[in-house]
Amino acid sequence: MPNTKSKTRSKPKPKPRRTRARLAKTPIKANLAKLKYIPWSTVEVENLNPLLQRQMLVGETMMLARVLLKKGCIVPEHSHHNEQITYILEGALKFWIDGKVIVVNAGEVLAIPPHMPHKAEALEDTVDLDVFNPPREDWLNKTDKYLRSGSK
Amino acid sequence: MPNTKSKTRSKPKPKPRRTRARLAKTPIKANLAKLKYIPWSTVEVENLNPLLQRQMLVGETMMLARVLLKKGCIVPEHSHHNEQITYILEGALKFWIDGKVIVVNAGEVLAIPPHMPHKAEALEDTVDLDVFNPPREDWLNKTDKYLRSGSK
Repeated sequence: MPNTKSKTRSKPKPKPRRTRARLAKTPIKANLAKLKYIPWSTVEVENLNPLLQRQMLVGETMMLARVLLKKGCIVPEHSHHNEQITYILEGALKFWIDGKVIVVNAGEVLAIPPHMPHKAEALEDTVDLDVFNPPREDWLNKTDKYLRSGSK
Repeated sequence: MPNTKSKTRSKPKPKPRRTRARLAKTPIKANLAKLKYIPWSTVEVENLNPLLQRQMLVGETMMLARVLLKKGCIVPEHSHHNEQITYILEGALKFWIDGKVIVVNAGEVLAIPPHMPHKAEALEDTVDLDVFNPPREDWLNKTDKYLRSGSK
């Protein structure tokens, strides 16, 4: 709450008229978002544990991540409010999710609803493209400890 | 506007109390969203014009599309309210966007803000992965005439 020292309530100020001139100065949100051209080769490769690397880039509302898993890498069970779409570009990931075991091979997609717990194991060296809405805050601010604790 | 025949205004109904029992019956949105496992090989390939094919799949808030462009294919200038992230998997697309010309090669990404007009030309046979938030309504309901009118 703002700290207002005055105890008397002043009359609310009248709203300014939204004239054409005023509207012209109002930035449209879309114009604030910037075009981004990004080769993956310029994006930092994070080493999360000996079997797991990651690159990520963020647009306005979505995050795109290339997750590189060595055979045997295990992503412990976790969940998040972000919707996730996983597209396996190379290799294969075995998922434990929604009471099922699903092997997602190269050329296959798994759309994971928000809040659904999932665990995964790389059956081969794997290149996994993950898309999130909204971007993963825990990945951006490095609080994703579940990925950094080694490969169980 | 809804067609309300009554000219007399009735009193607004009191809101029901949100008791624990009532809350328990309220479905949580996340539980309604379903896990989807989809190999691209099972997804319809749409033939939009002789140089352009497309596959798409929809999650809860995002759409993932594989766009297959033959060399010389031109996507006419258009814009949309959906945020778009384009990841070129194979080939190369030349974009006219934001007053610039940008060639996006395999392994490179273009994040296009909502409402930003863009045109593209395939410099080679190209596999383009597009992600949208929200899903492209015009693609789903087939009103995307700008893609179906041939290659210019």
